[in-house]
Amino acid sequence: MESLVIGVDVGGTKVAGGLVTMKGKLVSSLTVPTRAAKGFATSFGQVVRLIARLIERAGGRERVAGVGLCAPGPLDTKAGVILNAPNIPGWQKVPLAARLGKEFHLPIKVENDANAAGLAEVLFGAATGYRHVFYVTVSTGIGTGIIINRRIYHGKNGAAGEGGHVSIDSQSPYRCGCGALGHIEALASGPAMARRARVFLEEEHITPSCLRELTRGNLSRITPELIEKAARSGDGVAKKIIEDTGFHLGVWLAGMITLLDPEAIVMGGGVSRIGEPLFRTVRKTILQYTLNPSLAAHTPLLPAQLKTLVGVYGAASLFLPAGEEMEHGY
Amino acid sequence: MESLVIGVDVGGTKVAGGLVTMKGKLVSSLTVPTRAAKGFATSFGQVVRLIARLIERAGGRERVAGVGLCAPGPLDTKAGVILNAPNIPGWQKVPLAARLGKEFHLPIKVENDANAAGLAEVLFGAATGYRHVFYVTVSTGIGTGIIINRRIYHGKNGAAGEGGHVSIDSQSPYRCGCGALGHIEALASGPAMARRARVFLEEEHITPSCLRELTRGNLSRITPELIEKAARSGDGVAKKIIEDTGFHLGVWLAGMITLLDPEAIVMGGGVSRIGEPLFRTVRKTILQYTLNPSLAAHTPLLPAQLKTLVGVYGAASLFLPAGEEMEHGY
Repeated sequence: MESLVIGVDVGGTKVAGGLVTMKGKLVSSLTVPTRAAKGFATSFGQVVRLIARLIERAGGRERVAGVGLCAPGPLDTKAGVILNAPNIPGWQKVPLAARLGKEFHLPIKVENDANAAGLAEVLFGAATGYRHVFYVTVSTGIGTGIIINRRIYHGKNGAAGEGGHVSIDSQSPYRCGCGALGHIEALASGPAMARRARVFLEEEHITPSCLRELTRGNLSRITPELIEKAARSGDGVAKKIIEDTGFHLGVWLAGMITLLDPEAIVMGGGVSRIGEPLFRTVRKTILQYTLNPSLAAHTPLLPAQLKTLVGVYGAASLFLPAGEEMEHGY
Repeated sequence: MESLVIGVDVGGTKVAGGLVTMKGKLVSSLTVPTRAAKGFATSFGQVVRLIARLIERAGGRERVAGVGLCAPGPLDTKAGVILNAPNIPGWQKVPLAARLGKEFHLPIKVENDANAAGLAEVLFGAATGYRHVFYVTVSTGIGTGIIINRRIYHGKNGAAGEGGHVSIDSQSPYRCGCGALGHIEALASGPAMARRARVFLEEEHITPSCLRELTRGNLSRITPELIEKAARSGDGVAKKIIEDTGFHLGVWLAGMITLLDPEAIVMGGGVSRIGEPLFRTVRKTILQYTLNPSLAAHTPLLPAQLKTLVGVYGAASLFLPAGEEMEHGY
């Protein structure tokens, strides 16, 4: 019988897991709450129980080739250590591969969630057929992954690919969650869009605005979804916010194309679900800010395909064949 | 007898060539004027004659393993075609590898000059011992090369590594030579420093300034060398220009570290010869703008070592053993 891989996506709210065949077919999936607030022992227990149930579903340990896990934040992929998972209290310097290996007597690999998601989109999602891909997920934060020859590029410390923390506006007054100024995450993430909306509605007192009505007077309720809804109703403020967000993403991705010359860019995450109104501005801006517009025009910007289980696919991908060999160099 | 490699650096003013051993030792070098203004037939003839003389010095064609050439601007490394070499009239879509191969019956390889220089610094210069290096040359323009596992990273079209054309200041009014706004080349190259100086001295009428005196009233005479000289004499305007330049380079390199997690950065080119006053500001700014200052603090910023013959070494490197195999992935 074909062996299976377990993929686990550890997030601040939920832990998602799945059984994946060596060809990348998801045959079973399972989601449990992380219970992050209850501390490390509880949330780690949730992960252990989820893996145990997936092993059971696989038909026993001997049918499982390995367990891949992905988590947010920096980690040491070689040693299998989570260094600091934001939003999961107690997940600092956790030797996850060692602890789970002892528990299950199976090979364990860990990976940053955006890197894993990028690999999954290349192997099974929007970018199958491409070898060099820049993957972006725009939601609460902006995560990226650099895929070269269908493998994750890690750099020296395994910290490569944190493209959300590249400054594209050194004059910007906006501070990123990491503390620095002008990072694209501080300019084009979901919270950055909401901040932009509040600035428009509070400080500039633009009325009438159906965006204001949608929030029922409580501007802290603004989300990218509401902004998109308002834009669809023709709201000028909402349209401007989407345009500004697309502009910043475009300036940034122009740089990524100039620097990395990828075959394709895949863009996912909650904010990207705004779809064409956002993508249109991104594409237009890329051509204005890149060195070589004719090359950039032939670098497709693809919407991600794998949706909510992308992390499960990505984590499982760590045990799947890495794709073609590096025949042609890079 | 050991075979030799010919390295040729084709520039707008001069063509430099050298004979290099398979261990990277330069045994002979030669420089001729490009005579670019006289058109393609003349400048191409200069390159052919220089190669012929180096073959003679090597002791004949059978002693030469190949001829590597580097040139500015975009080229198709796989096909060996120069697409558009700036400042060398007529060097557009030149099938250099095919034409020189027919002339000399030797293997020919071509490469972008900054990529070749980066490889040379890794194999023989400032970054020997490192595998993943980001190379920067700051002079009239800003060229970069991405070296991964001691090999040049090319991307899809061979256009990767044009890091000088990444925008770090989307609000900047300054247009790059390529037409886009806020590119680091438009903010921190030699001409950008001179522009900064003119703005200070013309528009802000700052006096007294020994920088103004050094130009003898002709502000078009300002060069990075003059600015450095004035700064050494304590001139406040000159110091401020060096600081601003270092700030922009620091914001930019912070992003490169966050994105690529290289083991080291090598910085060369005329502007980098300002040395410590510039490097100090760059290092300080990197720590303020990068995601992970503790990793960045352990990413050395090294002055380039190979000076004026870096292109010759780099071009020759295209035929030298590529260094260790990709044992550890990336």
